[in-house]
Amino acid sequence: MKAELISIGDEILIGQVVNTNAAFLAEELNKLGIAVVRITTIADKAENIPAVLEEASTRAELVLTTGGLGPTSDDVTKYCLAEYFNSRVSLNPEVLERIKVFIHARGGIVNDKNAGQAMLPDNCEVLPNRSGTAQGMWFSKDNITYVALPGVPYEMKEIFQNELAPRLRRRFILPVIHHETVLTSGISESAMAKLIEEWEARLPSNISLAYLPSPGILRLRLSGTDNKPDRLLEEMRTELKKLEAVIGPYIFGYNEDRLEEITGNMLRKKGLTLSLAESCTGGKIGELITSVPGASDYFKGGIIAYSNEIKSDQLGVSPATIETYGAVSREVVHEMAAGALIRLKSDYSVAVTGVAGPAGGTDRKPVGTTWIAIAAGDKITSKVYHFGEHRGRNIQKAAITALFMLKKELEGNR
Amino acid sequence: MKAELISIGDEILIGQVVNTNAAFLAEELNKLGIAVVRITTIADKAENIPAVLEEASTRAELVLTTGGLGPTSDDVTKYCLAEYFNSRVSLNPEVLERIKVFIHARGGIVNDKNAGQAMLPDNCEVLPNRSGTAQGMWFSKDNITYVALPGVPYEMKEIFQNELAPRLRRRFILPVIHHETVLTSGISESAMAKLIEEWEARLPSNISLAYLPSPGILRLRLSGTDNKPDRLLEEMRTELKKLEAVIGPYIFGYNEDRLEEITGNMLRKKGLTLSLAESCTGGKIGELITSVPGASDYFKGGIIAYSNEIKSDQLGVSPATIETYGAVSREVVHEMAAGALIRLKSDYSVAVTGVAGPAGGTDRKPVGTTWIAIAAGDKITSKVYHFGEHRGRNIQKAAITALFMLKKELEGNR
Repeated sequence: MKAELISIGDEILIGQVVNTNAAFLAEELNKLGIAVVRITTIADKAENIPAVLEEASTRAELVLTTGGLGPTSDDVTKYCLAEYFNSRVSLNPEVLERIKVFIHARGGIVNDKNAGQAMLPDNCEVLPNRSGTAQGMWFSKDNITYVALPGVPYEMKEIFQNELAPRLRRRFILPVIHHETVLTSGISESAMAKLIEEWEARLPSNISLAYLPSPGILRLRLSGTDNKPDRLLEEMRTELKKLEAVIGPYIFGYNEDRLEEITGNMLRKKGLTLSLAESCTGGKIGELITSVPGASDYFKGGIIAYSNEIKSDQLGVSPATIETYGAVSREVVHEMAAGALIRLKSDYSVAVTGVAGPAGGTDRKPVGTTWIAIAAGDKITSKVYHFGEHRGRNIQKAAITALFMLKKELEGNR
Repeated sequence: MKAELISIGDEILIGQVVNTNAAFLAEELNKLGIAVVRITTIADKAENIPAVLEEASTRAELVLTTGGLGPTSDDVTKYCLAEYFNSRVSLNPEVLERIKVFIHARGGIVNDKNAGQAMLPDNCEVLPNRSGTAQGMWFSKDNITYVALPGVPYEMKEIFQNELAPRLRRRFILPVIHHETVLTSGISESAMAKLIEEWEARLPSNISLAYLPSPGILRLRLSGTDNKPDRLLEEMRTELKKLEAVIGPYIFGYNEDRLEEITGNMLRKKGLTLSLAESCTGGKIGELITSVPGASDYFKGGIIAYSNEIKSDQLGVSPATIETYGAVSREVVHEMAAGALIRLKSDYSVAVTGVAGPAGGTDRKPVGTTWIAIAAGDKITSKVYHFGEHRGRNIQKAAITALFMLKKELEGNR
């Protein structure tokens, strides 16, 4: 089954709002085995809507609109839908009653704007809204299903989950689609493409691959279809195993995993604590680690040693070491990691020092040069990286790479 | 001038990625006086692309695509464009040279996938990509301008700002639109709407207002149109002055200003240094401050004092104070700020301790309760805030609010 999404709203066309509704619906419909083939955003103007519905119905069996159902005068979708489906708009007493109960429960008074939300096209099936007054609507015409949902994200989501998804499951025979995303770090998109070229070329035709890069992380998404769920799962598992055999050392997780959560869980399970010594990342690693609820179970804290003075005073890095080797060096990152371990009394420590840019680069240590060390007990592992020219991305890559190195150390691999 | 955006990418259609590219382009084109009338997302499949370009060209004079230009085999846009514009794809030696320089500078080796990025349609004007290998392309056909940009957000943005926007300004007569954005903190959207109700109601009809909220920050964007630029600027200046008279204490900057940059510049100008003592923000404030190039001029570093042990050991917070008042208290935040000031030898310090959530809240100190202190010399200013229930937003709000307090202290206001 194919679907098209139509987002109605001027706020998206002027970039004031990012279209998260479409992302939510696309993901949820995909999980149901409904492929979204197009997403269209148009202005909330009466003249646009019928043509877009007409076009969509030539390509999809399910046409889903969001937005344009609010109580204010600039929301015209409802009347356009009524006209498009040759319907009259009339008062739905049941809906009016629900709206009254909803507003009274919140201590409000029903005005004519709210009451107007009970004026609905005669020939639609109402999809009740439990968290607002704009109702969802289900229409059928020439074997095409049209659904209109409000644009307020939490209202739209609630109607989708409670009303629309169950109806779609009941009324249509939906195919099986399965997605698996492999999360990797430490390799560029083009190097990855080269590495998995052969495997990719031999993928069965019902399984497709997508590369999803972001700074420090490259996600590989496998999407498979088959009418037999078990066979598909088996087939995907086989392909995943082959892929893992090729790119194993770069993999840090799957699907919705986050590196900071994975490393955090490893620390918690082993009963270990962590501290940080951050120079060029300036607090970014701490921010990632503490974005995970419950991080206090294993995270003690850190020193943001931005100046050399703090590297020496707070981490015990010898001024002579800085003088001799420079602040961005193997020697300094080792002393930083050791200092954090001892002074912050943790089992593991992570230290980073680098040239984030745009200034500060030299011929021998250009912008992007970054030393990362992991210390545990009396063992320190360190490595130098050459990221890029962009300050923000260098910081992001350094933080992700440091967590990836920590994960490998916690696993006992290097 | 009307524009249509076409986002090419399966990752948007399955909801794995939110279409932030479209939001960015819609906002930027609007600023240039170009109205986006439709945004369409389609799959990266050869059969889709020509029809969508054709449709868009019937409604808009500028058709802008993003995505589908990567080096991997699932990116087909380039070949579709070549076919659509009756062009051959051939090697562009100048682009190949740039790609080589780009990859070598990063210590990489040019493989055939990278080199393939220099294969470009003959009849396009190349919009060089400074931060990647996928080039932007400008085509003209039957008085319609078509532009293809890569889908990686930072590459797309850089090409837009450095290459595309200047060409659009030069080559088309665009209407006069002027935007002024006032940046505020410390006030909710609904409280702001109430506060400026009268002013907003009296805005001239050629000036419109938009509220752009994000955690900790509320931006107010004024957009004015007029065929006389001088008159428009004058009119906008008058309205801004009236607005400033009402909301002055909440304003921290204008347009592209960033709070971390403003406070950084104030510190630099005054020759002052800063240190941090972060508990619940976990490094977020340090990350914001060090995201600004040259932060080492004024930022010495900080202590991420996530555990109470580190609050005591590294900042000198008395265990008795923590025991008596709790880690989230005026007393503790004062000792944290004083400790950072003395131990990190800075002129100013910022300290934050709070309950970020979701766990850790109590009746007296519910999730969101956050103490922030600014210390300078022997003076400490502190305040308690009650943010909300969402961990990520609480951390973001605490960091922004701390910088806003620092700015006020640096100005000598409270």
